[in-house]
This record gives sequence, C-alpha cells and structure tokens, in this order.
Amino acid sequence: MGSVAVLHSAQLMTLAGPARPRSGAEMRELGIISGGGMLVRDGVIEQVGSSEEIERNLPNDADVLEARGRVVLPGFVDAHAHPVFGGDRVEEFEMRARGATYEEIAAQGGGIRSTVRKTRAASEEELLALAQKRAEWFLRCGTTTMEAKSGYGLSLEEELKMLRVIRRLNETTPIEFVATFLGAHALPEEYEDRPNEYADCLVEEMLPEVVRQELAEYCDIFCEHGYFDAVSTRRVLSAARAAGLQLRMHADQLTNSGGAALAAELGAVTADHLEQTEEEGIAAMKAAGVQPVLLPASVYSLGKTRYPMARDMIDAGLAAVLATDFNPGSSPTPSLPMVMSLACTQMKMTPAECLTSITVNAAYSLGRGGRIGSLEVGKRADFVVCDCEDYRELAYWFGLPLIHSVYIRGRREL
Amino acid sequence: MGSVAVLHSAQLMTLAGPARPRSGAEMRELGIISGGGMLVRDGVIEQVGSSEEIERNLPNDADVLEARGRVVLPGFVDAHAHPVFGGDRVEEFEMRARGATYEEIAAQGGGIRSTVRKTRAASEEELLALAQKRAEWFLRCGTTTMEAKSGYGLSLEEELKMLRVIRRLNETTPIEFVATFLGAHALPEEYEDRPNEYADCLVEEMLPEVVRQELAEYCDIFCEHGYFDAVSTRRVLSAARAAGLQLRMHADQLTNSGGAALAAELGAVTADHLEQTEEEGIAAMKAAGVQPVLLPASVYSLGKTRYPMARDMIDAGLAAVLATDFNPGSSPTPSLPMVMSLACTQMKMTPAECLTSITVNAAYSLGRGGRIGSLEVGKRADFVVCDCEDYRELAYWFGLPLIHSVYIRGRREL
Repeated sequence: MGSVAVLHSAQLMTLAGPARPRSGAEMRELGIISGGGMLVRDGVIEQVGSSEEIERNLPNDADVLEARGRVVLPGFVDAHAHPVFGGDRVEEFEMRARGATYEEIAAQGGGIRSTVRKTRAASEEELLALAQKRAEWFLRCGTTTMEAKSGYGLSLEEELKMLRVIRRLNETTPIEFVATFLGAHALPEEYEDRPNEYADCLVEEMLPEVVRQELAEYCDIFCEHGYFDAVSTRRVLSAARAAGLQLRMHADQLTNSGGAALAAELGAVTADHLEQTEEEGIAAMKAAGVQPVLLPASVYSLGKTRYPMARDMIDAGLAAVLATDFNPGSSPTPSLPMVMSLACTQMKMTPAECLTSITVNAAYSLGRGGRIGSLEVGKRADFVVCDCEDYRELAYWFGLPLIHSVYIRGRREL
Repeated sequence: MGSVAVLHSAQLMTLAGPARPRSGAEMRELGIISGGGMLVRDGVIEQVGSSEEIERNLPNDADVLEARGRVVLPGFVDAHAHPVFGGDRVEEFEMRARGATYEEIAAQGGGIRSTVRKTRAASEEELLALAQKRAEWFLRCGTTTMEAKSGYGLSLEEELKMLRVIRRLNETTPIEFVATFLGAHALPEEYEDRPNEYADCLVEEMLPEVVRQELAEYCDIFCEHGYFDAVSTRRVLSAARAAGLQLRMHADQLTNSGGAALAAELGAVTADHLEQTEEEGIAAMKAAGVQPVLLPASVYSLGKTRYPMARDMIDAGLAAVLATDFNPGSSPTPSLPMVMSLACTQMKMTPAECLTSITVNAAYSLGRGGRIGSLEVGKRADFVVCDCEDYRELAYWFGLPLIHSVYIRGRREL
C-alpha cells in the first residue's frame, strides 16, 4: 500500500494518552500538535510529530497530503447506531411536527413496529443496498468505525438477515462495522401480550444461533416500561454473556427504571440513553466502570428538552461517549459533528470533551481502543481532514459540512 | 446563455400560487409536480410541467439535467443574516459550553462588541475575503439569495466599509445579496452611556450617507433593553423610512418590550426573532401585514428553550419566514435545511410550512417575491437539486448535507 505523509495541519488532534477510556478532566486533554504531521505506512501510523520531524524521514515513495489550514482528527467512531432498516419514517416525522407524540404514534401502529414491517418485507439485497447508501452518509460526516444493531427483525430468520447485512456492510464498504444483536428491541406483534414467551425465543433460539454463526460481538436490550422489564433484561443479558457476547443496554430513556444500576449489576460495557438517570445511577456506573453512551440527537429530534446529565456524569469521573443513535424514528442523523453541537449547546459539554467522546472513548466502548480512536504510533490510520483551523469549529458552525476528506487504513475514501 | 431542461425530478416543488406572501393554510400548498420538469432559457424559467411536456418542446441546444430520483426546489432565500464580520467567537462558544450566559459574556467585553473590534481592525479586502468564503458555505447549503446586514462597524466609516463589502459580495459571488443597514445593532463603546448622541449620529450622519451612496435597501434596529429602546427605535426607523429605506426590526428577542407591536406601528416589512412575542403582538402584526421572521437557530445555539410561537403566528394568518440569523455569536449556522429541522422539531411547524418560509415568503419579505422564491414561468431560474425523493427529507435527515447541486440564473454554481 505504500506510505502517506500528512504535513502542516493547522492542528493535529492526536488524542494521545493512557491506553484506556478517558474520564473526567482527562477528557479535555487532546494532545494537540499545532502544525503537526504524521507518517502512515501500509495503513498504520508509523510516526506522529511536528511537520519538520515527518519531513526529515520522508520516504521517497510517500504520497504527501498537504493539510495546510486544515484540522486533522482521528476518524469518528459512532458507538450506537441502527443503520439497517427498510423504508423511512418521514410520515411520522410530519405527524410529530403536527403535534403527535412518539408514544401516540407507536400506539397507532407506528414507531419501531412500522420499521419492523418494512424491514421484514425487504430482501437481504434490498436492505444491503439501503444500508450501503447510508454508510456513504456516515462517511460524508467523518465516521470511520460504527456500531450497527439488529432489532428490526424480531424473529430468528429476520434478525439473522439483518446481521448478515451488517457483516456484508463490513465487507463492501470502507467503514468498520461492529455488530450488536438487539433482538430485544421491542415485542413483535405476533408475541403481543406474551413477553415471557418472546424472552424464551430470544434466549433459547435466537441467541445461540447468532453466537454459533459469529454474527455479533455485543448483545443489547431496550430496558423500558412497555418493552423489556428488569426481570427480562436480567434473563436475556445474562444468557448473552454466558454465550460469549459483551453487553450494551438501552437504559432510562423514557422513565428512570433503574436501568443504569442494572447495567452496572450485569457488567455491561455501556449504558445508553440515560435521559432519566440520576445520582444513584451515575454512582453505580462509576463503581462498575460502565461507560455512558449519550444520544442527544434523539432528545432533540423528539422535541424533548430533558437531556442526560452529561455534566454530572463527566464530573463524577465517567468515561462518556457520544453517539448518533441513527435510526428512522427518533434520531435521523448520521452526523457526529451535529451531535457535538447538541452536546455543547444543550448539555454543556465542552468541545474537547465532545471530541474525546466520539473518538477514543467510543473506540474503547466498542472494544477497539487499542487499534483506533487516536492518532498514535501503531494505530490504524483512520483520520478525517476538516475545513477549519480550530477543532472547536466542528461543533460551532453547526449544520455546515466541514469534512474535507476521510482516510481509512491510510486510504482516501471520501 | 442558452437553455437548460430539468427532467424527471422525483418532485418538482414549484411553490406556485398567488403573487403575494402565503399565509395560514396556504403555507402548506407547495404545488408539487411528481416527476416534473422545467425549461430554462437565458436564466429565466420558460416552462414548468410534466417531464413529457418539457421533452416535447426540447430545444436542440438544451443542456439536459436528468434529475431522476432527486427533488428540485426553488433556491433558498435567507431573509436575516449577518455574514460580514471579522474573526469568530469560538472562544465564547466554549465559554457558553462551560456554563457562561450570553449576557455574562457581553458584560465581560465579549458579545457583539468583540466582533465590532475585530471587524473594525480588518481591512475592506480582508472582510470581503472572509465573507466570500462564507458565501460559499451558504451556497453549499442551498441558499441563492440572502440578506446581509451591516452592524459590526457602528461608525460612519466602518458601516460604509461593511456595506461596500456587501455590494462587492453581490458583484463577486453568484448569490444575490440584499443589503440592510443595521448601524443600530449595539451602542459602540465610544458612545457608552450616550445613547441619544449615538441616535443623533445614526440619523444625522450615517443614514443620509448610506442612502446617498445607495448602499442599502432596508434599515434594521436591535430594539431591546440595554440596546435601543422604543423611543430611539421610533426615531431611527422613522428617519430611515423618510430617507427611502424599508424597515426590518429585531423585536422581542430577550424580553417582550412590545417590539412586534412597534414594528406594526412603524410599518416595518418584517419583525424578526419574536421569541417573547405573545397574542397582542401577533394581532398587531396581522393587522399591519408585518411578516414574522423566525430564527430558531439562535435559540438553539444559545441553549435556550423558549422558541417563538410559530404555530400561533401561522394559525393567526401571518406569512411566516424562517431564516438563519447567521452570525458569529448567537447563530453560527449558514444552513436553512438545519433551520427547517429546528422549526419542525422545536416549533412544530410542518415541513411544508418550513419550505414556504424559506422560499416564497422569504423572497417577498426581501421585496423580491415577483422575481424569485418559486419555480414559475418568468421567474429567475434559481433552483436546488437535493439527494432525496421527498422534500420532507430535507428537514428529517438533519445534519446531513443533501444538497446535490445549486443553480442560479440557470447556471450551475455548486
């Protein structure tokens, strides 16, 4: 593959630091090299430093990327996303604009179930084509690694179909996808009023097959009133862990049901959403080392105003992550820069904390902190070049596409 | 210039309708032609209809724009923007993310005054280069006509410098700029505690020279506690009207000071912001035919939650406009699609109302409704092609750049 030298960035945002998720004040330490450069060989970062240092060792065959006046950052890592689905929910978006609530729409057969119907109706090839188009959207927004959840199939065959699409996204797009099995996203219509039987199906039929086919690394569940209660959550996630999957959890989104504490009890890697989580949940996550994954785009998109207590979580020493929650119902944005804007303006996170949250901390939450998430020697050369001179502009000039180019494994993909 | 034929759009959003601003339910009538097309000759729309009709008359020399699978809309019109300024306010953005309020930052010498210092320190050439870069940002977001306010000079020479930059933007970029004199944006430091003397300066020195040099079509004022009170507002705007300018007004942004009613009394074309305006202000605007210009991006960006009562205004029959309020302090976004998202999710406007608000209604508010703002025969061929199949997706998939290409006077500019 040869080598690529990046020279004369306005700022090289290395995010260099300890080889673990960053918490508290560490989240504001970004390892900025003004005017910095980087040498990449065979897709891996070989040297990071001043542009003078890089130029001294410049191999003859190196492609030079002159980044003058631009900021270079680690590729963005989206740790919570639902990119595989049939159809869209633009009709519901309009209904909400006219005043209907998410809950009212769900009660009328809309919501997750409407996407389940469209996803089941789509062939594997159709789903793949749709998801590939969306992968290009993520790339345009600077994302180089992302999670992808199943959860719009809700039967053995349909969940396997979604997970195969995720595997094929990995093979056919430059983005690295990390698969999460979310069979417990909602109760399918055919199990209406039989939640325990659906839990049986999840634990006895779906989980073993997902693991046998090595289609997922993580298992997730929507722990919420009207979806999966604490008893089901314990049962499903314990079985998933016993089968060899790591755990994530949709917790405390609509009500404070003790989800964060339950995630801590079960040893989940992350607890996600947390809009209703308060002090005791934060303390439990801290004690167990759970990373909070905050999803302000869904709060915004639903027209709500209660955002998670990001400030308290960071000040308590949690290693926070920000993610898009990309999905057709409650968070139709693939843009992590947009999420940074929301986090700064609505949750009072600083731009530095936001950047740590969408790079190195997100990478650790997906089990890839040793390989990606920062620009350090030995890591994969996934990086983004932005049309601005100060990284904070990414959150500041919102709604404006500032991504100039995107490199994955040292190769330009956008 | 020759001719251009647009064929086979997914939706041609004509916005055809009565030759006046659209109010109430009219705002939801978009004149959509599914699969529609358009013939443009010498920069002017000559025919609009089904693609079959357009193809029947296709001139031999026509460039064909095959829009299959894409939506074609009128170029967006931004009726409230401050694109000319020195520096940025990314430091203040970070201070606000850390919890400081806009008012606290202003009290420490930040806010508008910090931009005034940087704007005065910049040469006319420097200001022009900065504004040209920003004009490219607007173009990337689909804007083809926009207002540009002075107001960071606050002295005769410095305001004239800004207005000359706006004139030169018109000459050197494809976007049409409409100049508004906003000498009454804030009290300059050298007039601290002497507001009446600054009003003298505005009325006796600045206004006559701006008019003599034909540098502005509109006069605007920041009517607000601590800025310009009702007495000064009456004086300045009456003088402006007598001198031949039309009126716009920053009204009821931070407090309800009766600004909307005052705008009605003074015969302003628009009253802008209106976050604090209530029923009586709405009634006064309705009686006087004032168009409300709503700026949700500044509410969002300041981390506030009180948005203007858009629903009440539209239901009362006002011809609402949405605009970016682009400026370095309170609204650093050039994106009208982002503003549509904010209007739908935070103010419960429908996507259709939003589209009318950023096209035909905005054009009328800038005195150009007869020439731009809709895709009708005889109008200028300013149009935007978007990578989506339903216009509502522009507001739905937020943070994602969906603009495929932008045409002004029938010529591709992006």
